[in-house]
Amino acid sequence: MSIERVVACLHQHRDRHLQQLRELCRIPSISAQPQHAADVRRAVEWTCRHCRALGLEAEVHETAGHPLVFAQYVADPAAPTYLVYGHLDVQPTSDRALWDADPFEPVVDGEWLVCRGAADDKGQVMVYLRAIEAWLEAAGTLPVNIKLLIEGEEEVGSVNLAPFLREHRELLACEAVLISDTGILADGVPTITYGTRGLCYMEVRLHGPAHDLHSGTHGGPVTNPANALARIIASLHDEHGRVNIDGFYDDVLEISQRERELSAAFPLDEQQYARDLGVPGFNGEQGYSVQELRSARPTLDVNGIYGGYTKEGASTIIPAMAGAKISMRLVPRQRGDDIAAKFKRAVEERCPRTVQCEIIEHAHAAAYMTPLDAPFIEPAREALRAAFGSEVAFIREGGSLPILPTFRDELGAECLLIGLASPSCNAHGPNERVRLPDLDRGAEAVARFFELVAK
Amino acid sequence: MSIERVVACLHQHRDRHLQQLRELCRIPSISAQPQHAADVRRAVEWTCRHCRALGLEAEVHETAGHPLVFAQYVADPAAPTYLVYGHLDVQPTSDRALWDADPFEPVVDGEWLVCRGAADDKGQVMVYLRAIEAWLEAAGTLPVNIKLLIEGEEEVGSVNLAPFLREHRELLACEAVLISDTGILADGVPTITYGTRGLCYMEVRLHGPAHDLHSGTHGGPVTNPANALARIIASLHDEHGRVNIDGFYDDVLEISQRERELSAAFPLDEQQYARDLGVPGFNGEQGYSVQELRSARPTLDVNGIYGGYTKEGASTIIPAMAGAKISMRLVPRQRGDDIAAKFKRAVEERCPRTVQCEIIEHAHAAAYMTPLDAPFIEPAREALRAAFGSEVAFIREGGSLPILPTFRDELGAECLLIGLASPSCNAHGPNERVRLPDLDRGAEAVARFFELVAK
Repeated sequence: MSIERVVACLHQHRDRHLQQLRELCRIPSISAQPQHAADVRRAVEWTCRHCRALGLEAEVHETAGHPLVFAQYVADPAAPTYLVYGHLDVQPTSDRALWDADPFEPVVDGEWLVCRGAADDKGQVMVYLRAIEAWLEAAGTLPVNIKLLIEGEEEVGSVNLAPFLREHRELLACEAVLISDTGILADGVPTITYGTRGLCYMEVRLHGPAHDLHSGTHGGPVTNPANALARIIASLHDEHGRVNIDGFYDDVLEISQRERELSAAFPLDEQQYARDLGVPGFNGEQGYSVQELRSARPTLDVNGIYGGYTKEGASTIIPAMAGAKISMRLVPRQRGDDIAAKFKRAVEERCPRTVQCEIIEHAHAAAYMTPLDAPFIEPAREALRAAFGSEVAFIREGGSLPILPTFRDELGAECLLIGLASPSCNAHGPNERVRLPDLDRGAEAVARFFELVAK
Repeated sequence: MSIERVVACLHQHRDRHLQQLRELCRIPSISAQPQHAADVRRAVEWTCRHCRALGLEAEVHETAGHPLVFAQYVADPAAPTYLVYGHLDVQPTSDRALWDADPFEPVVDGEWLVCRGAADDKGQVMVYLRAIEAWLEAAGTLPVNIKLLIEGEEEVGSVNLAPFLREHRELLACEAVLISDTGILADGVPTITYGTRGLCYMEVRLHGPAHDLHSGTHGGPVTNPANALARIIASLHDEHGRVNIDGFYDDVLEISQRERELSAAFPLDEQQYARDLGVPGFNGEQGYSVQELRSARPTLDVNGIYGGYTKEGASTIIPAMAGAKISMRLVPRQRGDDIAAKFKRAVEERCPRTVQCEIIEHAHAAAYMTPLDAPFIEPAREALRAAFGSEVAFIREGGSLPILPTFRDELGAECLLIGLASPSCNAHGPNERVRLPDLDRGAEAVARFFELVAK
């Protein structure tokens, strides 16, 4: 059986597949809004019915929050099994006036499908179901066993996903997890995101005098909590832009030569990037490129700072308290709890004895990196290259996806992230859109990938 | 004529003087509140009538704001002339519920008179009119010429005082200005405040990216305005607690040996002071006592700091902007405009090129110091010592009184500050009060002072 027959099936049913995606996108499955809880369930049930119609076993599972759907097709118990993960819930639409049309009435505009969920993540979920359908139609079976776990609360933090994984380890056992919920580097460039950063989010509050003091009557001998806080924050970087916390870099996985080669194929236009952000230029840790700094190196950023009089004009006080929310992006091998402890120690040591230091630990999430020598990497690259007719970009993303280390921890499986969302998809914003040729090529790439990993 | 007859007159009329003070205090002359403008005028007119009743020439003068009263008694054109300055307007009462009684219904509670304005400044103004009355009654004249300038908008910044001084230089010509609008070091301890600090109030805003950025996607190469601001603020002090701005100390008048001797007579109880403020201890510029640091050395304090996400919980952004209100207390010889320029230069030099720096100059006011060798210092000391039966404390106040350099600049006259308000007077707060024996002794001291400077 030739893969070309599978691809032909995909092309043949393109219009129907688009109608099916539009049907799914019409369901306003906003997981953050209680009044849309029934819609999240509708989207999950729609997907369950669709899987069954394709010939998969499928079932809706309840969780403590929104339900999820689990489906599977066992082609051959001896064949490898891949788990597809995605989500059916969407972000709120916020200001309707910013949308050109009803966010839940999908509009085709040239190559684009415009609606909430088109890119994030309904369009990308459907890519897998299209590939499965094409294989079943063209070959009557699949070259691998497929499981699908499509949840309904990714946009609200996937809070019930880890418990579900933990309780269904056998059901979910797989070679690897396939996820399309990220972006492509540029339209038409197939992209594998092989790393994400972790997060360690802290808050420091320095307490000085019992009340705000008159800065004239008392200024001089009194330690000003805002000045002391500035001093502590300043001390958290050294003059080379490195984070100045004892042991902060101990476990950092350095960027490999292989990664640098991969990255060199798709260099970042730094000047354009600066213009996009509206900054006069960049700095940061010395010895790394802008692209490396924003994705593969750890950071420490003040996310918010507050204290004293901050309204119009002048008030001459020494504030009783000053605080800052400070978060660190972590890279592979750094552990959130370890970094939190090291941060805490550094701040406490540097806090003058004349103020009291309060440290709050808000959250931490681990970084993730797909091993570049994982057995599915080369098949994925080959499949994407064939489908897109273009070399594959390998990138690391600077943000955090806490579900990735969760899959590794709970299932022992690595994740393959095939992103299909355009840089201009505006996920989470108004007029969210997806480029239909990228979805078509994505479906073909997934169909090809199934064959290549079948062995 | 013996001074003792004057003092006897003071004692004799004590009760009537108290009734007169209560009458004045019943007028709710809150200068900040437009609905009380007529009350400010009533207080000014009441005082004008009272001066005339004592035998002074007195007149209400209009200004661009609230009126003021000018009065004078010319005893002998060859005698020296002293100008008494005070104010009749009061602070708002804020939360009535925090007061034990109506703020404008004066209550005598043991040694205390409790009401708005009792200490600040009606009670202290009346001290001078009592001394004048006693002299005129006992001796039919005064040993010196006296002018009084009692205004109605001190609590709103005395904005029309400097123009009035400038336009009436001859009318107001004097040897020195007598002011009782400050505090005593401790109940029963007569106090001369011979110095106040100046102020230079700035605001720094650092502008980074055009909008708040996702700290994951972009964190690393982007200069975070809040981190950069913390670094600049931290750089504004060195490791010895000194202000680290080029030339900041160039013009600072050092504390003299004479001042140290005067100060040693009334040492500050630093532990009690720390308890009062609710701080674990003090630090600040090395080499100076707590008392010196809070009154005779310049400072740099953050009065407010802001930027990014400051509500509950965590938000992972790089803020587009961060800012701080930063003010410096200045000491004699430092010039506000010079310090503002030096501050600006230091901040601009230290601002990384990857953010934009905006600096706002809010205000500056000069410091003031009464020369300790001024001819009226020893007579004032002798008069206070005689009236209180206690050694006189000489102190410098850490706050700013911009009217003091204004008197020097416009009239060429130095100011003598005889404070009579108790440390527990709660001026500006609820249950403002004044200790009546301190007012009685103050009136006696003023009567004695007039004789001692008559020559």
